[in-house]
Amino acid sequence: MVQAYILIQTEVGKASTVADVIAKLPGILHAEDVTGPYDVIVRAQSDSVDDLGRMVVAKIQQVDGITRTLTCPIVHL
Amino acid sequence: MVQAYILIQTEVGKASTVADVIAKLPGILHAEDVTGPYDVIVRAQSDSVDDLGRMVVAKIQQVDGITRTLTCPIVHL
Amino acid sequence: MVQAYILIQTEVGKASTVADVIAKLPGILHAEDVTGPYDVIVRAQSDSVDDLGRMVVAKIQQVDGITRTLTCPIVHL
Amino acid sequence: MVQAYILIQTEVGKASTVADVIAKLPGILHAEDVTGPYDVIVRAQSDSVDDLGRMVVAKIQQVDGITRTLTCPIVHL
Amino acid sequence: MVQAYILIQTEVGKASTVADVIAKLPGILHAEDVTGPYDVIVRAQSDSVDDLGRMVVAKIQQVDGITRTLTCPIVHL
Amino acid sequence: MVQAYILIQTEVGKASTVADVIAKLPGILHAEDVTGPYDVIVRAQSDSVDDLGRMVVAKIQQVDGITRTLTCPIVHL
Amino acid sequence: MVQAYILIQTEVGKASTVADVIAKLPGILHAEDVTGPYDVIVRAQSDSVDDLGRMVVAKIQQVDGITRTLTCPIVHL
Amino acid sequence: MVQAYILIQTEVGKASTVADVIAKLPGILHAEDVTGPYDVIVRAQSDSVDDLGRMVVAKIQQVDGITRTLTCPIVHL
Repeated sequence: MVQAYILIQTEVGKASTVADVIAKLPGILHAEDVTGPYDVIVRAQSDSVDDLGRMVVAKIQQVDGITRTLTCPIVHL
Repeated sequence: MVQAYILIQTEVGKASTVADVIAKLPGILHAEDVTGPYDVIVRAQSDSVDDLGRMVVAKIQQVDGITRTLTCPIVHL
Repeated sequence: MVQAYILIQTEVGKASTVADVIAKLPGILHAEDVTGPYDVIVRAQSDSVDDLGRMVVAKIQQVDGITRTLTCPIVHL
Repeated sequence: MVQAYILIQTEVGKASTVADVIAKLPGILHAEDVTGPYDVIVRAQSDSVDDLGRMVVAKIQQVDGITRTLTCPIVHL
Repeated sequence: MVQAYILIQTEVGKASTVADVIAKLPGILHAEDVTGPYDVIVRAQSDSVDDLGRMVVAKIQQVDGITRTLTCPIVHL
Repeated sequence: MVQAYILIQTEVGKASTVADVIAKLPGILHAEDVTGPYDVIVRAQSDSVDDLGRMVVAKIQQVDGITRTLTCPIVHL
Repeated sequence: MVQAYILIQTEVGKASTVADVIAKLPGILHAEDVTGPYDVIVRAQSDSVDDLGRMVVAKIQQVDGITRTLTCPIVHL
Repeated sequence: MVQAYILIQTEVGKASTVADVIAKLPGILHAEDVTGPYDVIVRAQSDSVDDLGRMVVAKIQQVDGITRTLTCPIVHL
């Protein structure tokens, strides 16, 4: 099992909608609006890094209004 | 009461218009064109961080020609 | 009540220790190591943005091995 | 006369002191702590861009605890 | 002979296709999807830095779905 | 008299054309293609920082294919 | 099995030594000097993302002269 | 023959000295102080990209007060 934070930049004016839509996707633990260089911060989990990559490309990046995602896998050192 | 600087990047050629339009919005103390990685720097105030976030998304980011905003709340340490 | 994500860069080789120390501070909900441009992502809460700013400067930034923190307050749009 | 915003990053734990010291320098209109990628935002004025550059290097950057400054001259388009 | 890494950002949802298309271009040694601030990392070779620049502009940047490329020539110190 | 470097990012595939067009504008000393995070580096001169800002917005940013410009005024310390 | 690119920034003047030392570590496929925003690009492999994170912190970041590492896991979409 | 721009960040307060010292190195065409995210912009030339890389590491980065250099080779597209 892999968890990750996904830091998202949205088109101007779309942050709220993007967070609402992502929050309902499978594998998403929560999705919240933030201020600063990112607009939405998401916590997600999947079975592997490859699954995580596929979830980001096939599910999250399909949400209308997203311009960039930055995936930060959580590691247990 | 919360004040913040909002650092804005605009589409090429739109900086001057963006600053003029934002300067007239409620809650904006001033909006000026700058050179460097940002195109316009705005000072705004609102009742809370949530209100500030809403002002940025609902008012400022609706101005035509803005590509990114970076909100930096002022803190009293 | 204000919650925020704090994205942290550490000195090389210090990420694990930094996360462990921060996780025990008051007001910290969790602190985890990640890969990518940030080394540790923290979730914190406090009474106001000013309190949050003070917590970051007076508590979190005092932890040995931190080089940069980026505070992203959560907003409810 | 030239005015500029100067966006400042400080060593961890030094933001508050840096803002206090800079606020008392000649040519500084105000200096405030912020959250986000910058720690202190300053507004300054001087006679020319060259004078502004000299003020930043000879006065502001001499303040203990500053790691980076980013000068954004205000322009009247 | 010059080799280089080319770090690529793509439109959301296009990373996989972009890597597949680039991998088949002449002069490309491999092209892979990654997570983090870049979406695809490519290794390429050409006869000179000028040739490399031309390959990036005339071949790689013509691939649909690329938003930014960052060319990092390999140097032998 | 003020001189400045202007670091330019272009749409993919447009770097060469952008440099050629800018090189012919009044006030431009030279404009060249580069590899790395910027695509074109320009050297320009004008009568004042305000004139420089106007030249960038009214002339350079009107060139088709430019996505971001970063103006770095030269200072004599 | 997980592979990753690790983009490394070094202290000034240390790039060549850093690449030589890293190239001899277990799990490193190759390590080369580059120009641009990064100084050394490494390709590494390990059994899992957690192992990869540990390798970066316990082995690579222990090499003298490294200031930042950015791990980009390769994903198969 | 290869020419390049080298964008330099210096320790606070060192920009002027760094530019003066670099300007006297062999292969340097000019070195000037700028405001913005970089402190000094240099134009250099050498016989090849490898020579350029060696000049940056062995000569320029040895100058006291430099914290980062970003080499942007000029390409003729």
